[in-house]
Amino acid sequence: MSAVRETFSGVLVPVLTPFTADLDPDAARFKRICRWLLDEGAGGLAVFGTTSEGNSLTAEERNRLIDELIEAGIPAHRLMPGTGACALPDAVAMTRHAVAAGAGGVLVLPPFYYKNQADEGFFAYFSEIIERVGDPRLKLYLYHFPQMSAAPVSPALVERLIKAYPATIAGLKDSSGDWEGTKRLIAAFPDLAIFPSSEVRLMEGLGLGAAGCISATANIQPSPIARLIASHGSAEAEDWHRRISTVRGIIEAYPFITALKAIVARQTGDDAWLQMRPPLTPLDGARRDELFAALDASDVPLAVNF
Amino acid sequence: MSAVRETFSGVLVPVLTPFTADLDPDAARFKRICRWLLDEGAGGLAVFGTTSEGNSLTAEERNRLIDELIEAGIPAHRLMPGTGACALPDAVAMTRHAVAAGAGGVLVLPPFYYKNQADEGFFAYFSEIIERVGDPRLKLYLYHFPQMSAAPVSPALVERLIKAYPATIAGLKDSSGDWEGTKRLIAAFPDLAIFPSSEVRLMEGLGLGAAGCISATANIQPSPIARLIASHGSAEAEDWHRRISTVRGIIEAYPFITALKAIVARQTGDDAWLQMRPPLTPLDGARRDELFAALDASDVPLAVNF
Repeated sequence: MSAVRETFSGVLVPVLTPFTADLDPDAARFKRICRWLLDEGAGGLAVFGTTSEGNSLTAEERNRLIDELIEAGIPAHRLMPGTGACALPDAVAMTRHAVAAGAGGVLVLPPFYYKNQADEGFFAYFSEIIERVGDPRLKLYLYHFPQMSAAPVSPALVERLIKAYPATIAGLKDSSGDWEGTKRLIAAFPDLAIFPSSEVRLMEGLGLGAAGCISATANIQPSPIARLIASHGSAEAEDWHRRISTVRGIIEAYPFITALKAIVARQTGDDAWLQMRPPLTPLDGARRDELFAALDASDVPLAVNF
Repeated sequence: MSAVRETFSGVLVPVLTPFTADLDPDAARFKRICRWLLDEGAGGLAVFGTTSEGNSLTAEERNRLIDELIEAGIPAHRLMPGTGACALPDAVAMTRHAVAAGAGGVLVLPPFYYKNQADEGFFAYFSEIIERVGDPRLKLYLYHFPQMSAAPVSPALVERLIKAYPATIAGLKDSSGDWEGTKRLIAAFPDLAIFPSSEVRLMEGLGLGAAGCISATANIQPSPIARLIASHGSAEAEDWHRRISTVRGIIEAYPFITALKAIVARQTGDDAWLQMRPPLTPLDGARRDELFAALDASDVPLAVNF
């Protein structure tokens, strides 16, 4: 499956979704940040992930944004949109649209309303998506984020899916934060592209065979993470590791998505980036000042400019 | 707000959604069960609730099923469809559709993907729905089911919403299973129609001022629950209470939705009712036999026939 692994590697970004004051997706700003992230060295754009407020977007909104990105010249094969949904037909429709548009892959969350469901039910969900889309170009990445989705992708489920759909199941994003579990996945599924959700484990992860990372904080430090990956194994990588870990360490004390939008707004001088779609809310002024002060006090410069 | 309280009271049913072998909603069977439930004395049909696999249905599917029910002669004002969604525009579109169709109310779940969100974000969500629909006919019932949705509707949020939209916020379904909390809600909001999610607390709840109940198990014992409510305060009610509590007690040992579908399939002799949409899965044969044996061993006859 080396062809699959070549499709996506390095630092993938769950791109922040900008909204207008009317709470509609802001396609113009979205295209700008996507273009900038690729220019900075992102290996792919995992649009409509958790950090993207992806589950706050309708299927139609996601499909339309993909079309707009491609029309604006973003290479379709660099896109790995989130196409999971609670309602199977929505997941099928979004996956079909992404594949038809030429997306390099899709990142699929299991349905997440009903809790404590059996692997059997999740297998049926993924299987129906794959069978109904019925397109050999489909490369499906499983999205494991038990703390948020409450719908884990178990190793047994991964194994069963690979067995049934070896040419389709291409990888897995592991947002569990359980590094021992991630290492077991990398060891158990050497042909899958495994992406941990934090850049902080990259030094060790790349050595073990991780494909890269899909990280929220890659929205504000794509180039430093790309450089760590490019210099992996050399002394330079250590310095990039220290820098990206410092930034992530500061941001981890805040609600991630709203903190990242605050940083982008400040760095670009564009307060439109502060807009969240409910139920998410902007960081209050005092917390925002605290976050900015912590970043300013560190010796790591940020360079978000688009 | 007595006019509001008159709209819905008694036993409301989160109607099971039948699916075809192709996993599409089965409109013909859906109309049959809805008609039967009303004939048996249901005060309203809370279609597309948790028991209805409502969050496994797309917005378009839900809108279409409402239209089909109304075309088939189900009175629109007896419908209280679930119109909550993770994506605000979906919630707005479904709520708008329900109101335009003449639904007596809508039962709205907060967006449930992002966990630990502030009341502020939930207020913004409900507020946007109400403002965007902008129709004085809208009667909104809040859906509090923290164990499943992980998105609680707090008393402070209820208070704020009532203050902002006194003519719109009509009631609340409390699926928390926390009876002390339910009693506090009934006492704190005397003008709201409060519906606990179990018929087992009806005897006490009706006395305190609950509007009735919206209960999963009402799918298989609508008439007994309606009779308990009608005879409330008399000796007859005690007997109905014992009967409905016996049935519910048996079913509570099984996954609710799949157990209820198994019972409907058995009672109607129509195995099409066994179909679930992923991620839900049918009860396995042994567990099903066990459930049927327990029901048969009780002295309470079920009469599901449509």
